[in-house]
Amino acid sequence: MRKYVIGIDYGTDSARAVLVDATDGQEIATSVMNYPRWAQGLYCDAHNNRYRQHPLDYVETLEHIVREVVAKAGPEVAGQVAGISFDTTGCTPVFTDAEGTPLALTPGFEENPNAMFVLWKDHTAVEEAAEINRKARAWHTDYTKYEGGIYSSEWVWAKAMHILREDDDVRRTAVSWVEHCDWMAALITGTTALDRLVRSRCAAGHKAMWHPDWGGIPPEEFLAELDPALPPFRARLSAETYTADRAVGTLTPEWAARLGLDTGVVVGVSAFDCHMGAIAGEITPGVLVRAIGTSTCDIMIAPPEEIGDRVIAGICGQVDGSVIPGYIGLEAGQSGFGDIYAWFRNVVAWPLRKLVPDRNDLTSQIIPLLSEEAAAIPVGVSPVLATDWMNGRRTPDANQNLTGTITGLTLASSAPMIFRALVEATAYGSRAIMERFRREGVAITGVTALGGVAKKSPLVMQTMADVLNLPIKVARTNETCATGAAMCASVAAGIHPTIETAQKAMGQGFEKTYTPIPANVEVYDRLYAEYLRLGKFTEEGL
Amino acid sequence: MRKYVIGIDYGTDSARAVLVDATDGQEIATSVMNYPRWAQGLYCDAHNNRYRQHPLDYVETLEHIVREVVAKAGPEVAGQVAGISFDTTGCTPVFTDAEGTPLALTPGFEENPNAMFVLWKDHTAVEEAAEINRKARAWHTDYTKYEGGIYSSEWVWAKAMHILREDDDVRRTAVSWVEHCDWMAALITGTTALDRLVRSRCAAGHKAMWHPDWGGIPPEEFLAELDPALPPFRARLSAETYTADRAVGTLTPEWAARLGLDTGVVVGVSAFDCHMGAIAGEITPGVLVRAIGTSTCDIMIAPPEEIGDRVIAGICGQVDGSVIPGYIGLEAGQSGFGDIYAWFRNVVAWPLRKLVPDRNDLTSQIIPLLSEEAAAIPVGVSPVLATDWMNGRRTPDANQNLTGTITGLTLASSAPMIFRALVEATAYGSRAIMERFRREGVAITGVTALGGVAKKSPLVMQTMADVLNLPIKVARTNETCATGAAMCASVAAGIHPTIETAQKAMGQGFEKTYTPIPANVEVYDRLYAEYLRLGKFTEEGL
Repeated sequence: MRKYVIGIDYGTDSARAVLVDATDGQEIATSVMNYPRWAQGLYCDAHNNRYRQHPLDYVETLEHIVREVVAKAGPEVAGQVAGISFDTTGCTPVFTDAEGTPLALTPGFEENPNAMFVLWKDHTAVEEAAEINRKARAWHTDYTKYEGGIYSSEWVWAKAMHILREDDDVRRTAVSWVEHCDWMAALITGTTALDRLVRSRCAAGHKAMWHPDWGGIPPEEFLAELDPALPPFRARLSAETYTADRAVGTLTPEWAARLGLDTGVVVGVSAFDCHMGAIAGEITPGVLVRAIGTSTCDIMIAPPEEIGDRVIAGICGQVDGSVIPGYIGLEAGQSGFGDIYAWFRNVVAWPLRKLVPDRNDLTSQIIPLLSEEAAAIPVGVSPVLATDWMNGRRTPDANQNLTGTITGLTLASSAPMIFRALVEATAYGSRAIMERFRREGVAITGVTALGGVAKKSPLVMQTMADVLNLPIKVARTNETCATGAAMCASVAAGIHPTIETAQKAMGQGFEKTYTPIPANVEVYDRLYAEYLRLGKFTEEGL
Repeated sequence: MRKYVIGIDYGTDSARAVLVDATDGQEIATSVMNYPRWAQGLYCDAHNNRYRQHPLDYVETLEHIVREVVAKAGPEVAGQVAGISFDTTGCTPVFTDAEGTPLALTPGFEENPNAMFVLWKDHTAVEEAAEINRKARAWHTDYTKYEGGIYSSEWVWAKAMHILREDDDVRRTAVSWVEHCDWMAALITGTTALDRLVRSRCAAGHKAMWHPDWGGIPPEEFLAELDPALPPFRARLSAETYTADRAVGTLTPEWAARLGLDTGVVVGVSAFDCHMGAIAGEITPGVLVRAIGTSTCDIMIAPPEEIGDRVIAGICGQVDGSVIPGYIGLEAGQSGFGDIYAWFRNVVAWPLRKLVPDRNDLTSQIIPLLSEEAAAIPVGVSPVLATDWMNGRRTPDANQNLTGTITGLTLASSAPMIFRALVEATAYGSRAIMERFRREGVAITGVTALGGVAKKSPLVMQTMADVLNLPIKVARTNETCATGAAMCASVAAGIHPTIETAQKAMGQGFEKTYTPIPANVEVYDRLYAEYLRLGKFTEEGL
């Protein structure tokens, strides 16, 4: 009787696997591995916002982390693994050949960044996104409407257009594209070929303008408007998409051997990390579940009857079943969160790195120290005010051309004061998302926070509770996204009948609640209005 | 036959003396000493922009530095010292008793910051300055008009009002006030008493609303409008003021002994540092002479017939004879310059100070290193844009409520990129001053730069030449202000008939010229427009 499942989470820098007992959610073993090429900075150009990942980074880490959790759990458990599901960052697509193989794995493209996965935070396609938006507005049907009405440069069609225009080799050779999450499941089940590829509802619905209203991907005439190379892609992308409770197939003999498992293991349909994380965060209607890391991904679910025909403007999409079948999944997010703190750490660590190079290890102490001193500054005392757009803005109203601003600077503005302003800025960005959901009629009564920042930074979490004026629960699980994937794997493998029952059986609950402090709420109400004004100026100034 | 003179310059952090041969300007000896109480941070509150200096800091440094230059030069030279002149920061006033003694030197006030000199950069009187401006606009005569039409919180009447309202002890006790520069000359000549005090044309005209049009200080009725305690002060301030070519008197026996000189030494009328610096910088009409340090002080001179009846708006004043008798002295300046670089150094040095406290000596390497890497960034490539108002704005159009802003920040913005933006911001602030002079009909054909930043930072100077599109000459002398004071001392002591002849005899010429690079000029023309827009937003956003 098989009762274990493996959830695999591909993050920005590393992949992690968690092997879980599907009956009670108990974590048996975990493993993490950084992407080796990415860690060396290969294929990226931060100054031009180009971030690419080589498919071999994914393959090598997969093999390592699964073998490691299997080894840690022991052979008896390994024999009882029933299912594997994946979550990944997204939109992180790659061009493929007709077999569905990423071009970077085919001869002549091994070192071509345009043949690799285009990481979610790659912003090279800003102009193409603007073009899609212009053309979508002018068309009889706005195919972006279920994706918030603004197509982002982070999403697949913009990225595809950008690369097709920039790289003739890819333009001549690319037959289709695949999302990272879908490719992982297809790879180990031997279903990468275009006629067999199972596409995730979550990825297609939130990023590829897939919607039942127009029978899937936008029609060829519209794609032709965008680029003459695009129409053939439609026929190569199936009209059907699948929710994460479903199975893709079982392990191929080759992959069973490579992973140290058997061919009886069922592989579930993948989804994006934050959607799986929201499942592990025991999402229910009315609760905004925030996966907080380098960026945030914010998920809500709502019964279809609550949304009705409404189209929610300025978010990253509303997709039936993208989180839990039977509910509309709503996605939003901040393009920069922990990344902004890390950026400031890097700025202030510059003299340390230059002048005391043998003590680079000290860099890791900077954010904890800054947090400690920033927390001692009373709310509303420092005049420093910042926006959180150092990596553009995802929601509300995607705009990757935006940049970050820090104002209110005086000669007395210290590093902790600026850090505090950045923490507040990320909380204001959170509030802008909350306000947008509410304005569009989606009630929010609480927040659940997932991820490292949520667990590690009381300053960030209390500030967010104060700025949002909402209680924030911190989920207990450490491997949130991977745990959500494990829950989905248990459903795909038939251990639990639905994702909701898997959540009930496997959920780990909450470790802490941050409650808003009324005096701070009042101050932040005022400062949030200033944040909006500062943002408005930056935006109009472009 | 006496042929040596001593120039004494009181800066923000230290006092320095230079003993010079008045026949050829050759520097015989110099001495510098930091203010001991100031160096400990006493009496200041940076977060509230309160900066006070104890009179004993001035007295102790005076004795030390003069004795030191005299000792270095030897007894033969000491016997041939003909004159001493002072320059100081300003407006840096103090309340006094009837004998003209600063209150902090009288019983009960020894530790009261309100009884000490209020340093130029003290911005505690922002509200009082606003009140003066409102009332001056509403009065039949705008007494601020020859001071640029905006009275600054850095100036004496605002500071006096602020302290009189804040401190009842001072309000009850203060009989008059004196500028730091005037007090120094009065102290050593025994002329501090109100009926003997010689006031500098430069200080009174630029900061105290002194003007012949209304017979000196504004009339009692107007002072009464500002504060009922003020009218008596008018009668205690003489209607006459004096240019820096004149003598105040000779050393008292006590001070001759304390300084190691004799009572034949003539003490000249003092002036502010940048005015004396402009003299040493061989100022001529059409040349903007900039003393560049923590802040800048920008001086021009123009023949009275060029200015005519015109009132130049938004600068720090136009005063007949404030630099050289016979010319209108025009003053402007940036409230923050080197201070802004030092602020950023302090921000990025935070981890170094916290984590490697035994290597605090490394801090001094940060600005040179940042400059080196910033210089390697091509002009116009980094999107980071800043304003230079971290210490408010002095000119054009004084506004101490303004704060600094940095925008265009991305996750790729490095410390050198931000530093470069700050260097550019200070250059844009310089250009705003230049544009104001030109708009008001004062031609500028070149710039002379004085001070440490001018000599040490090719990055700053080349950027300024490019942004201003003007050649910038760097004066050779190291002790600019003190040298200018020495030139004035030579005239007060009768060695040279006029300041111009002293300049010709004693001037040290220029060591370098920065020439604008046409390609950069073009880029900066565009970026300067963005700086103006960013500034406009910040200003309107208050």
